[in-house]
Amino acid sequence: DDGDSSLNTLTEEDIQKLISSSKEAMKYAYCEYSNFRVGAALLAEDGSIFTGCNIENVSYSLTTCAERTAIFKAVSEGHRKFKAIAISSEVKDSFTYPCGACRQVMIEFGQYDVYVSRPDSAWQHTTTQELIPHFFSKKALRSVQKAKIQN
Amino acid sequence: DDGDSSLNTLTEEDIQKLISSSKEAMKYAYCEYSNFRVGAALLAEDGSIFTGCNIENVSYSLTTCAERTAIFKAVSEGHRKFKAIAISSEVKDSFTYPCGACRQVMIEFGQYDVYVSRPDSAWQHTTTQELIPHFFSKKALRSVQKAKIQN
Amino acid sequence: DDGDSSLNTLTEEDIQKLISSSKEAMKYAYCEYSNFRVGAALLAEDGSIFTGCNIENVSYSLTTCAERTAIFKAVSEGHRKFKAIAISSEVKDSFTYPCGACRQVMIEFGQYDVYVSRPDSAWQHTTTQELIPHFFSKKALRSVQKAKIQN
Amino acid sequence: DDGDSSLNTLTEEDIQKLISSSKEAMKYAYCEYSNFRVGAALLAEDGSIFTGCNIENVSYSLTTCAERTAIFKAVSEGHRKFKAIAISSEVKDSFTYPCGACRQVMIEFGQYDVYVSRPDSAWQHTTTQELIPHFFSKKALRSVQKAKIQN
Ligand SMILES: [Zn+2]
Ligand SMILES: [Zn+2]
Ligand SMILES: [Zn+2]
Ligand SMILES: [Zn+2]
Repeated sequence: DDGDSSLNTLTEEDIQKLISSSKEAMKYAYCEYSNFRVGAALLAEDGSIFTGCNIENVSYSLTTCAERTAIFKAVSEGHRKFKAIAISSEVKDSFTYPCGACRQVMIEFGQYDVYVSRPDSAWQHTTTQELIPHFFSKKALRSVQKAKIQN
Repeated sequence: DDGDSSLNTLTEEDIQKLISSSKEAMKYAYCEYSNFRVGAALLAEDGSIFTGCNIENVSYSLTTCAERTAIFKAVSEGHRKFKAIAISSEVKDSFTYPCGACRQVMIEFGQYDVYVSRPDSAWQHTTTQELIPHFFSKKALRSVQKAKIQN
Repeated sequence: DDGDSSLNTLTEEDIQKLISSSKEAMKYAYCEYSNFRVGAALLAEDGSIFTGCNIENVSYSLTTCAERTAIFKAVSEGHRKFKAIAISSEVKDSFTYPCGACRQVMIEFGQYDVYVSRPDSAWQHTTTQELIPHFFSKKALRSVQKAKIQN
Repeated sequence: DDGDSSLNTLTEEDIQKLISSSKEAMKYAYCEYSNFRVGAALLAEDGSIFTGCNIENVSYSLTTCAERTAIFKAVSEGHRKFKAIAISSEVKDSFTYPCGACRQVMIEFGQYDVYVSRPDSAWQHTTTQELIPHFFSKKALRSVQKAKIQN
């Protein structure tokens, strides 16, 4: 499932450690509306780990997911380069992949490993790029903006 | 690029018509902050077409994209089954694929054709599923919710 | 409740007509996750009415509300000046006011009347400005952006 | 400006400390698209402070604000009761109040003090409730959901 763009650079031990952090993060999930807990753990380039959980809102649309919470925490502490993110949920018979909103936020900070897990600690590997093929890039946005300023 | 899940059921004439509608829709883009116009045209199962443009907001985060505008219009008029969506933008040297938020909203209504275009009317084909591999399904969410109600 | 900034320029007949449109719009609500229906009807300056309903998403955060659906529809058809918006829901013993996300999208297009209703057709009046006091303006954003370009 | 619901329970010294934290948080703002920095500092009931900055995204709509970043960080570390939040930006001649999305996320965790500041450290006081009058409550949502389950 990895395609040829895959990195998968972590050791099994590091993967298990990251998944374990993502599982622990589930305990703080604020999921009053879905009753569904998700956790994430983000490994920054310097080795530090930032965890996140889903945080819901009565308006539904202002909910954030575990993955975005972890990324926002890391970026707000000065980190913008990441090695991997692990994701856990309560779904038993399948692996919980991120929603489209999180995929877009993940790819904003480049290509890195994604480990999606099950409660029994089984995991699958993918990458931020595989999750959002042909993603819209800053370069494309800026090409239009520059062309307009020049005219 | 299509993979084996691709539909690509439209005739070249219908594709050009849909792309043309998506280009026209760009004229109403409210893009005060990005200065970047995007248009979309959504073909419902009954043959009706719903167009959309990007509509931005001073808070950035409350911006909507052309694709979501088109889908929201169609759903609010009673449509939930779609054949295809076409997307246009001002980017000249690449095809404008949807952002992750739009991919997630697109797949909520199932598998259908996606045609991304360039200003010179060249296009590429993909599908809603190809754009968000391993998407998180209602089934997974409900499996957890049901298990909790039973306990 | 209106404060001194209130407009309330519609006749009772027009208010009832707008509320009635917002109630009808509830029938197309796609509310698989909340089981909660909301409708909105937006009166544009030229007298045309655009309706909207809530459209939810398995990811929760990609849900849109009835009010935003109505506004996005109108803007995507070339309207940017509005007289009033009416909102209906299934809540019986209180009036359903818009969420913060919708308030921000509503004020992007200026000051106009807001009529929130109950299933028994009772209504309360407010305005887009009253709903988001001290809203963050384009002017403030641009003052910073201009200062940076000049340096 | 405070109305009668205002708390304003912090000492001038604590307010200045919180504003100062929110200013420092601006340094990590990821604002590639707006070129506009915002910082926030959230005081939890136990005295700990969580800071946040705006983190933008090429898709605009997946941007998060400083206020939400701070709240998400705190909640993901187990905090759900707050005393106050301070907000700073680069706008010189007015106070930067939160966007509607942030107001909705702020009120999800109840009534507390909000201090909006200017670069010269002048500040204004308001509260989470004043910023979103007649906010939509969980109670209203649940009244509808319960009525449907009973039928
Ligand atoms: Zn997500
Ligand atoms: Zn999009
Ligand atoms: Zn809303
Ligand atoms: Zn905000």
